[in-house]
Amino acid sequence: MPEAATARAAHATVGDSEFDRDTAVTPREPGVYDTDLSAGWTVFDAVNGGYLLALLGRALGHALPHPHPFTVTAHYLTASRPGPAVIRTQQVRTGRTLSTGQASLLQYDDEGREVERIRVLASYGDLAALPDDVRTTAEPPAIPPLERCLGPEDGPVPLSGSSPITDRLRVRLDPATVGWAVGAPSGRGEMRAWFGLADGRDPDPLALLLAVDALPPTAFELGLTGWVPTVELTVHVRALPAPGPLRVSITTRNLAGGFLEEDAEVWDTRDRLVAQSRQLARVRLG
Amino acid sequence: MPEAATARAAHATVGDSEFDRDTAVTPREPGVYDTDLSAGWTVFDAVNGGYLLALLGRALGHALPHPHPFTVTAHYLTASRPGPAVIRTQQVRTGRTLSTGQASLLQYDDEGREVERIRVLASYGDLAALPDDVRTTAEPPAIPPLERCLGPEDGPVPLSGSSPITDRLRVRLDPATVGWAVGAPSGRGEMRAWFGLADGRDPDPLALLLAVDALPPTAFELGLTGWVPTVELTVHVRALPAPGPLRVSITTRNLAGGFLEEDAEVWDTRDRLVAQSRQLARVRLG
Repeated sequence: MPEAATARAAHATVGDSEFDRDTAVTPREPGVYDTDLSAGWTVFDAVNGGYLLALLGRALGHALPHPHPFTVTAHYLTASRPGPAVIRTQQVRTGRTLSTGQASLLQYDDEGREVERIRVLASYGDLAALPDDVRTTAEPPAIPPLERCLGPEDGPVPLSGSSPITDRLRVRLDPATVGWAVGAPSGRGEMRAWFGLADGRDPDPLALLLAVDALPPTAFELGLTGWVPTVELTVHVRALPAPGPLRVSITTRNLAGGFLEEDAEVWDTRDRLVAQSRQLARVRLG
Repeated sequence: MPEAATARAAHATVGDSEFDRDTAVTPREPGVYDTDLSAGWTVFDAVNGGYLLALLGRALGHALPHPHPFTVTAHYLTASRPGPAVIRTQQVRTGRTLSTGQASLLQYDDEGREVERIRVLASYGDLAALPDDVRTTAEPPAIPPLERCLGPEDGPVPLSGSSPITDRLRVRLDPATVGWAVGAPSGRGEMRAWFGLADGRDPDPLALLLAVDALPPTAFELGLTGWVPTVELTVHVRALPAPGPLRVSITTRNLAGGFLEEDAEVWDTRDRLVAQSRQLARVRLG
């Protein structure tokens, strides 16, 4: 890593980082926000679905009385493009513990008409106000230490330089799930990685919305090489993540009828299960 | 079973059954449907969340060009009551393979004002048009044969006569997950059962929306006795179910901060995984 990048990494913080700047929203009128989809979070030509969800999540955090996403569902309607966008939000219900809202991300066609890209339905709460009880039976994924996992600089592995988002993430894949990158997919619908932001910004609930959709698709390890567009993605944020790198584990069990599910878990450095997600995706054979 | 009930069981079909009649919706104007929440699908005083989801699912099936729910998310806002209700739908996007819609279930307060009970976002398609490929690694739940599982008539087990919905369902619980009913919960967040409609109507995609939320809460097997209201429930319908009883398996892995998830799988008689769901629920200690 160049020295300048190292120095920057040491200083990026929640609220002052590339991720925060690129998910910023500007109120135009109550509940309506202007934003700009950054070309920095694209995979080939597609704007990453997790980045888009974080952006919508930030707008809803402004529009609702509670600060944190507890459960967020997005339906991806049409392909988002880098550039200007508007987010229209609606308060559906506000309660003491939870509030529910809806949001639409829209862009403009050649005639300047609004085209809806994504529709979101979400309930927000305050993760800091939850009791400390934890009675989980879930266990962190078996993933080797970060230094034994593989990133773009380690050779013919995922996202190697081809996509701008690669420069913004620090994804280090479990060697057991990178077979696809060398033409030898495992046949198992599993993808595991350490996940962080390249500038060293620590995770917060919005970064969790990004983390669940930031790894290569499990379909690659199933031997499929086509595009796997998300139809719907639901994320449950279950706790405020501790500082430091996250572990993300994604599993696909049911590939059938041209669709598959991706189940993601995100664990923090305290071994807390901080997010669970599931998406329904279409399989487009390449 | 009384003879009359047996005779009725032999004749109920998809489209002509109690479930179909109690989830009927009547168009009032384009996209708006009148309905009546039946007291027959309540658990104590609460209208069952899966029944409500099936009702909303039926309205969206009318409002959208595609017939079957592929992915449906519901946020439960306020407590529904038996009686009149209105469902307002909106087409969000219609495409060739999928269409996306939104729906709200509303009832009336004492002053006749509409109060929103549930907000739904869903994408619909045509399950009959999907290719036949199945490359699943998921396996059916280990559950004893139906005749070795336990229903209300077998003694101090779930829902025993206390709730009207009991009469409309044929739920037979795996003996390994009924400890809670005799004061000896297993401590594992698991609930498994055979599921059918009492009048013998075979399953269809709408019945799957009911099936994922029809078992006793996993919280009971974790030793919790309070109410576990659903915040959000997402169901993926993955295939048209074959005739005959379904197997439903529900798992909770993460009980923390006063919330838990319930992951459900529904399998049909052909051993196809026909639905997957996850809900986020609050734990209210009793």
